[in-house]
Amino acid sequence: MNLLIEELKEVVGTVSTNETIMEHHSKTFTYHKASMPDVVVFPKTEQELIGIVAVAKKYKKPIIPYGVGTSLEAQTIPYYGGIVVDFSEMNEILAIRPEDFTVTVQPGVTREQLNQALKQYGLFFPVDPGANATLGGMTATNASGTNAVKYGTMRQQVRKLRVVLASGEVITPGADAAKTSAGYAVKELFVGSEGTLGLFSEITLKLYGIEEYSAVAKLTFNEITDASDAAYQILAGGMKVTKIELLDAETIASVNKQSGLDLKVAPSLLIEVSGSKEEVGLQLAILKEMAGDWTCDLQMETDSLARAKLWQARHDAALSIAAANPGKQLMFTDVCVPLSKLSQAILYARQIVDKYNMHASILGHVGDGNFHVAMAIDQSNEDEVAVMHAINDQIVEFALKHGGTCTGEHGVGVGKKRFLQKEHESTLFIMKGIKKLLDPENLFSPGVILDVEG
Amino acid sequence: MNLLIEELKEVVGTVSTNETIMEHHSKTFTYHKASMPDVVVFPKTEQELIGIVAVAKKYKKPIIPYGVGTSLEAQTIPYYGGIVVDFSEMNEILAIRPEDFTVTVQPGVTREQLNQALKQYGLFFPVDPGANATLGGMTATNASGTNAVKYGTMRQQVRKLRVVLASGEVITPGADAAKTSAGYAVKELFVGSEGTLGLFSEITLKLYGIEEYSAVAKLTFNEITDASDAAYQILAGGMKVTKIELLDAETIASVNKQSGLDLKVAPSLLIEVSGSKEEVGLQLAILKEMAGDWTCDLQMETDSLARAKLWQARHDAALSIAAANPGKQLMFTDVCVPLSKLSQAILYARQIVDKYNMHASILGHVGDGNFHVAMAIDQSNEDEVAVMHAINDQIVEFALKHGGTCTGEHGVGVGKKRFLQKEHESTLFIMKGIKKLLDPENLFSPGVILDVEG
Ligand SMILES: Cc1cc2nc3c(=O)[nH]c(=O)nc-3n(C[C@H](O)[C@H](O)[C@H](O)COP(=O)(O)OP(=O)(O)OC[C@H]3O[C@@H](n4cnc5c(N)ncnc54)[C@H](O)[C@@H]3O)c2cc1C
Ligand SMILES: Cc1cc2nc3c(=O)[nH]c(=O)nc-3n(C[C@H](O)[C@H](O)[C@H](O)COP(=O)(O)OP(=O)(O)OC[C@H]3O[C@@H](n4cnc5c(N)ncnc54)[C@H](O)[C@@H]3O)c2cc1C
Repeated sequence: MNLLIEELKEVVGTVSTNETIMEHHSKTFTYHKASMPDVVVFPKTEQELIGIVAVAKKYKKPIIPYGVGTSLEAQTIPYYGGIVVDFSEMNEILAIRPEDFTVTVQPGVTREQLNQALKQYGLFFPVDPGANATLGGMTATNASGTNAVKYGTMRQQVRKLRVVLASGEVITPGADAAKTSAGYAVKELFVGSEGTLGLFSEITLKLYGIEEYSAVAKLTFNEITDASDAAYQILAGGMKVTKIELLDAETIASVNKQSGLDLKVAPSLLIEVSGSKEEVGLQLAILKEMAGDWTCDLQMETDSLARAKLWQARHDAALSIAAANPGKQLMFTDVCVPLSKLSQAILYARQIVDKYNMHASILGHVGDGNFHVAMAIDQSNEDEVAVMHAINDQIVEFALKHGGTCTGEHGVGVGKKRFLQKEHESTLFIMKGIKKLLDPENLFSPGVILDVEG
Repeated sequence: MNLLIEELKEVVGTVSTNETIMEHHSKTFTYHKASMPDVVVFPKTEQELIGIVAVAKKYKKPIIPYGVGTSLEAQTIPYYGGIVVDFSEMNEILAIRPEDFTVTVQPGVTREQLNQALKQYGLFFPVDPGANATLGGMTATNASGTNAVKYGTMRQQVRKLRVVLASGEVITPGADAAKTSAGYAVKELFVGSEGTLGLFSEITLKLYGIEEYSAVAKLTFNEITDASDAAYQILAGGMKVTKIELLDAETIASVNKQSGLDLKVAPSLLIEVSGSKEEVGLQLAILKEMAGDWTCDLQMETDSLARAKLWQARHDAALSIAAANPGKQLMFTDVCVPLSKLSQAILYARQIVDKYNMHASILGHVGDGNFHVAMAIDQSNEDEVAVMHAINDQIVEFALKHGGTCTGEHGVGVGKKRFLQKEHESTLFIMKGIKKLLDPENLFSPGVILDVEG
């Protein structure tokens, strides 16, 4: 009889050691090696979370919080075994306050579920990683996506949290009010903590009115740097975009295949502008004028179905790369550089990829200077893995050398620890000190973000 | 011979024990009691800051960073004596990067100095506490002001910092890139640390293009709650405002007197909208339509001189209250509540003020749910001080009971410590742990934000 499992059953309704479920939680669809947990639990309440923490401590077993497992740097893989806490059953929307433009959710609520529920109030939540991720996972990775250029990242949307700590205590950092200068930024610390500091049990988020009207412009170019230069000019010129996405020819090709589209296979920018019909008209007029100076094709799309199809294609881009390479695993680089360095960084990435003869797609949220190189590789082929690392290393090094960061939105997880050490050499001891303060026994997600001695 | 002073003279160019200078740094113009420092130093370089820290540690003397001393909760008063570090000579703009919409400054640069230098690039920095504060002070209090409803607070503008720690080490939290998910939010911790965690030596900030065109609408109402209700409807209706400020009749009266204006003495909203001429026109049309449903006078102002005069009057409002009460000191409450609670909170504040027969002005950045009650009191009159505290206590209690915060923008300082303990009872140990981690000897601004034992 397994005492750990027995005691867990006393504190949480659903406890699973089913092989399929355990395997599902042992991996992601990225290149990182799988590792089995001891058990997967599906709590429904904060009280159950407190119980799980107590049992984990007693048996000295790690806890790994899990949303829907779409994070890309092995954040949820239980490399030290332990208890995977799957939040999919903590998926209630607790309170929608249209009068305050806020909502409080349990962390297992997904972004699509939330937006569905908000629609009737004319409200929406803007952060949209391609995947239908959970708000808990998005909070924990400080996720962003296509709308960040206008609305910001998760850290700007999270007003307040409830968090179960390793001590079993429940804390409530943040405030319902729109702003606060009350003490140190504890709430901000938990946003982006990647499951290493505590378990979120409730999240209060800022909401926005649904944009009245939107239009999408698709621009295709001959060279990828023409596309990134155009993106730069659009932003530097002060145009107000809601989204500005770059997809290289390879990305468009696999998107066409995956989504049954026939977009022109060329480096492209997808740009969304929104507001009142008049405002959108004004912005599109500016864009048309600018585009006159570039060698490009410009195509407008105001029909909502056609727009939705384009954005779905964009969101599916990552998965289309997977689909085009069945049996392989994915790797996404995720650097973010100052805007003026974007074209240079993208050109460099393309050169590195070509140098190694790697098949790779380049795509990104270029409004923030954030882009990804997506590669499909065979995890068990050591040579392929080595090449992938060589490419990733060089792209990250380039970004760090030019004032950039090793991760714009995917987080550090296990895969980016080396780079974090380099990027934040001077503040790493503070991160370690915070981890020790909040989780002295290294209970939560050991080996994620930091390696803590002892 | 004073050894502390002698050793300071070896590490920093300007060291002063001049009585006038010391007295200037012993107080602010708020109700908090004065307290003399041992010495005031005026460093010019980071190297000097490192030297000052070493000397302070040797002599176990506190260090109190000082911008221009406009903070409102006694953040800069040296209650334990020690070394006041006045940053006014660290006032160089180090690098303007129009291509990246960023700037790097020394912390003693003031916001007006910065905006003056940015003008030629068509850029500006939006955070505007009424006073001509320093970027160092603004970073340390997480300041905001009239533009926060559109642009956010300091925490959203600071990209990167250089900080001299109590250990003498220099750290560089943050990134030049527009976003990052690389590890815990260390940079965010320093923004809002009110001089208690380290000395900023460089600050990199986000910039924005100067708005092409702006217009101001002034609305006057019969009742203050009519004004706050209107503010709520404007925001809930999705109107895009750059500023939305409430001034009650008392505030208008003292502004008129101070600035030689003859604004109608009535509860008022000052609203700014900006963008292209067409965009501004669209927003003003919406406002006019809404105002048709209210009992109010609406007056538009597009002339730039007239607009500047109105905003100067708004910025001078706080000081006009001081001017109207010569010899008295000021107290500003600074609560921030969820938008839907704003009218109720303002009405309650007015009732409390009236109950105690206090003379007070109510004004605020109502777009964020943030407002102040400004009182002029005689610091040496114990009864007046007691009444002032009674009023402040009740206004803060009301805010906390309704999901608000004890300080929206002024910070905790010495004056709000009791409230911070209440508001953040559950996270206070984390704040203390962070303080201990970074400043184990309680060198920086002891007694500000937190009382650390031992
Ligand atoms: C096709 C595709 C496209 C993507 N595009 C983007 C993009 O544009 N932008 C972007 O930012 N990301 C993107 N991602 C990455 C991913 O979607 C995000 O990282 C997302 O935030 C993960 O959410 P999740 O629910 O899957 O969380 P998981 O992957 O399950 O977990 C993520 C992290 O959150 C922690 N966690 C989960 N729940 C909790 C909780 N309740 N309390 C504490 N910690 C918790 C986990 O321990 C882990 O560290 C993409 C991924 C895919 C597959
Ligand atoms: C008339 C008036 C109107 C105001 N309106 C607003 C408003 O609308 N919004 C708002 O937010 N505030 C407002 N304030 C408050 C005040 O202007 C802000 O708090 C401002 O940020 C203080 O800046 P300062 O340069 O005067 O800093 P100081 O008051 O000198 O210092 C403030 C804090 O910063 C620390 N500090 C200063 N420099 C450094 C450094 N280099 N490194 C580390 N710590 C440092 C100090 O130790 C202190 O804790 C107003 C004040 C007045 C007098």
